[in-house]
Amino acid sequence: MREKDIIAKYFSPLSRNAKGADELKDDIAVLGNLGSGLLAINMDTLVAGTHFFPSDDPTILAQKALRVNISDLASKGAVPFGYFLSLALPKDANEAYVEAFAHGLSIDQRNFNLSLLGGDTVKTKGPFTITVTILGLLSNSEIPRRSTAKLGDDIYVSGTIGDGALGLLAHPDYRGETNLTAKYSRHISHYLCPEPRVELQTIISQYANASMDISDGLLGDLNNILINSKLGAKVNVDQIPFSEETKSILQNEMDMLPAILTGGDDYEILFTADPKHADDIKKHSKNLHFNLTKIGNITDGSKLELFDSGQPLNMADFELSHSHKW
Amino acid sequence: MREKDIIAKYFSPLSRNAKGADELKDDIAVLGNLGSGLLAINMDTLVAGTHFFPSDDPTILAQKALRVNISDLASKGAVPFGYFLSLALPKDANEAYVEAFAHGLSIDQRNFNLSLLGGDTVKTKGPFTITVTILGLLSNSEIPRRSTAKLGDDIYVSGTIGDGALGLLAHPDYRGETNLTAKYSRHISHYLCPEPRVELQTIISQYANASMDISDGLLGDLNNILINSKLGAKVNVDQIPFSEETKSILQNEMDMLPAILTGGDDYEILFTADPKHADDIKKHSKNLHFNLTKIGNITDGSKLELFDSGQPLNMADFELSHSHKW
Repeated sequence: MREKDIIAKYFSPLSRNAKGADELKDDIAVLGNLGSGLLAINMDTLVAGTHFFPSDDPTILAQKALRVNISDLASKGAVPFGYFLSLALPKDANEAYVEAFAHGLSIDQRNFNLSLLGGDTVKTKGPFTITVTILGLLSNSEIPRRSTAKLGDDIYVSGTIGDGALGLLAHPDYRGETNLTAKYSRHISHYLCPEPRVELQTIISQYANASMDISDGLLGDLNNILINSKLGAKVNVDQIPFSEETKSILQNEMDMLPAILTGGDDYEILFTADPKHADDIKKHSKNLHFNLTKIGNITDGSKLELFDSGQPLNMADFELSHSHKW
Repeated sequence: MREKDIIAKYFSPLSRNAKGADELKDDIAVLGNLGSGLLAINMDTLVAGTHFFPSDDPTILAQKALRVNISDLASKGAVPFGYFLSLALPKDANEAYVEAFAHGLSIDQRNFNLSLLGGDTVKTKGPFTITVTILGLLSNSEIPRRSTAKLGDDIYVSGTIGDGALGLLAHPDYRGETNLTAKYSRHISHYLCPEPRVELQTIISQYANASMDISDGLLGDLNNILINSKLGAKVNVDQIPFSEETKSILQNEMDMLPAILTGGDDYEILFTADPKHADDIKKHSKNLHFNLTKIGNITDGSKLELFDSGQPLNMADFELSHSHKW
């Protein structure tokens, strides 16, 4: 049974009385007003051997644990302010490891203006497991959910797509079928420590109809917006932004395209907006330290269609992942 | 290195800018006003093989996971309203297990008026790991911390002490040195599913100076209040409330006393209050479904002293646990 189905069948009913939980279909829960904004909360868990490699530098790992949570808040235009941290430490974890991990937390507390608010540390016979519950504030009560895309919306993505997925394949400890050579250091860095797009706060809170962060692959996550919004989309693959390194891989190995478009760990933001805001979004995006790119449009129906230079691609080549985030 | 020292050395500094986190020395963090009260949050993790037995009934386990968190909020007089849940599921977890677990959640959502607000489900190669972040509201801004006991305060405990610790020893899967026979079913039930003392909300918010729930043993947790409040205490062991089953064990095996007074899993509440409130507390406690018992007083100095029928006991017989909760 898939995680998505387990959540829909057993856990969504438990959130029925909580309006802000949105039936667990979205990344964040939104509670009432806390001071100057609406309280937004997200909880994500990383497990060694599943979400990171046991050999990963603990300082950078701590940053990743915070950043994947920050990314969820950022995708809704919420500004994080604090977090709770639960660590299940293996018996062989030593003090130097914990010290390096805490150092990573302190670096990103400064980078993102966060405080540690509480948590728990426990021992486990299993792998190192990190759970973060992050709190942020939303200035706008109209929250861009997965379910709120509108017919005709432009579809935007931040940054470049596929660096995280390729970084996983290039990771020295990756033991899959298609591992890349380890020369793709930019990709590996992106996999180890993504850059949450907190700078998008203004654009998202002002212009986005639907929005989410891309953690399970661009196409799968877009499909998630389509399912929840009961709409379709046309996406121009030739407009999807890739890094130079990714382009050079694609020049030699075009069959990497599905892995790039459906692989996880981008932590870019995918949002939709009314075309009437296109000029304003363009103007605002000039101040960003990364690109915002229009890659397609929301359409009638329920299908995701891909085009390359105007020619339709065969969707059977792209196995969409189904997000199990809630 | 002990957990307590790791937290003090590496994690407390990360909470420095968050007033409501109380330097991670308390069970809960208190944030600003959310609707009708102050937002109070606690996060606790349970790991199979550490905090529960893999054979434990998943329905009751789900209730325990919620209740140990509810207990933390209740000890401060906060009323829980919702929670986030992260489950790291072993690869062999089947749907029936998840269904039974979700059923336990639904039972206690009704019992305690809670909603599931969000969370995460992930796969792990290790043991089943459950993290709950629980949210509640405090009506009173004067929070009974571990650090706020006052000289001369009466010391109270709810319910009876030692049932959880003896329940662990009597658990059919317990493989320690001093396991009891499995006939102590009341103890085992208490270990498997404690009864958080939410009924104490009024008394605690009106009268308690310091308060915490007893999760790591009565004497260790009381010592924690003493360390943080920089005070001492005299406790009369002959006044500590025991269940009939515990009394019968003590009649035969007086050497079980240290295990009973320092073992974990009571989830009773330990609080201190000015003696001038004794009559009011007594009056209010008549409506409770459990006993409130005065077991001693807060004293000058920093020592915890135990007496039995007026005679001092040798503290060397009691190895105090040190709470690592934060």
